[in-house]
Amino acid sequence: MAKRLKGLFITFEGSEGCGKSTQVKLLCDFLKREKRDVLHIREPGGIKISEKIRTILLDDKNKEMARPCEVLLYMAARAQLVHEKILPALRKGSIVVCDRFLDSTIAYQGYGCGEDIRFIRSIGSYVTQDILPDITFLLDLPTHKGLSRIQKPRDRIEQRSLQYHNRVRQGYLKIARQEPKRIKVIAGHQSREAIRRIIENDIRKLLP
Amino acid sequence: MAKRLKGLFITFEGSEGCGKSTQVKLLCDFLKREKRDVLHIREPGGIKISEKIRTILLDDKNKEMARPCEVLLYMAARAQLVHEKILPALRKGSIVVCDRFLDSTIAYQGYGCGEDIRFIRSIGSYVTQDILPDITFLLDLPTHKGLSRIQKPRDRIEQRSLQYHNRVRQGYLKIARQEPKRIKVIAGHQSREAIRRIIENDIRKLLP
Repeated sequence: MAKRLKGLFITFEGSEGCGKSTQVKLLCDFLKREKRDVLHIREPGGIKISEKIRTILLDDKNKEMARPCEVLLYMAARAQLVHEKILPALRKGSIVVCDRFLDSTIAYQGYGCGEDIRFIRSIGSYVTQDILPDITFLLDLPTHKGLSRIQKPRDRIEQRSLQYHNRVRQGYLKIARQEPKRIKVIAGHQSREAIRRIIENDIRKLLP
Repeated sequence: MAKRLKGLFITFEGSEGCGKSTQVKLLCDFLKREKRDVLHIREPGGIKISEKIRTILLDDKNKEMARPCEVLLYMAARAQLVHEKILPALRKGSIVVCDRFLDSTIAYQGYGCGEDIRFIRSIGSYVTQDILPDITFLLDLPTHKGLSRIQKPRDRIEQRSLQYHNRVRQGYLKIARQEPKRIKVIAGHQSREAIRRIIENDIRKLLP
């Protein structure tokens, strides 16, 4: 549990084109203005090993990749990120802001591809060493709207069908219903400013 | 279970320098002379995705790799190999001869590095889709003898300490005691010819 650690662990989730990367950046800017010690992580997070793994995952030449291989590669990259960056930062009391974390694998490979969700969670707890985000913002947007925002060329995951991305979205909403305390769902069609204000208000309450 | 499939699944295991790659080759030559349809696999098995994963695993620049990352990368590469090569071959009735399989991860990352063995087994059954070798030959050799046979430069795994490689060896012997029906332990100090004859005799009994 992140509670045992000194830091604050914030994650952003959502399907393609939901606007989360913009909001991650805005939140990090806000925290820096507040003179907080912030670590902004976008998987693979500048970690050499994880970058190499991500290259394999997103290469659209690797179309023959088996689902269990895909799940385990995402988890391997995350294991390294937790070990090298996230845990050390939380231990020394930093605020860690992550663009995607474990919920992504549950939504994309679990709900999206039909891989066993209980099993993904069990690998997840091995990989994350049982740290959980203190708060997760899920930016929710109708699938076709999100996809229309993505610039081409799309990577191996983005190229999947509309039905696939719909299952991912519905998966995210299910996860949010299961963990309403941790996960805050934000309607992604609102203006960038409106979303920024909602997030900042929530984070202010959590800051020590 | 491989029993449900038409083919025969043979694996070779052992610590560094035990001589298994030589014996794998000798067995494959024997099976080909017997006009059997043989698939000889040495992980990563010529699979493009698995080769890329293996490059990350064995690169001795990646010394900072976290153990869970290492376990999951081995498993991801194996998942792809099972999906692309091993399962299709067993389904069509071929004999598959594998230089290392799941027992390697249990011995090296489990017994060698102290990662949770029950957890490795559970990922293993996800990755292998529950196929088990029909027979496994474990070539056992005192650790210092095996290591002295390896040509330099050694890769990231081979560079580990003698104590580590001792734990791997003892781990293998434990696995063999747990599954005496599947795993046949062969004393690796015997001559190449003596070992070849033991293996051929065992395999003759299994051939349809």
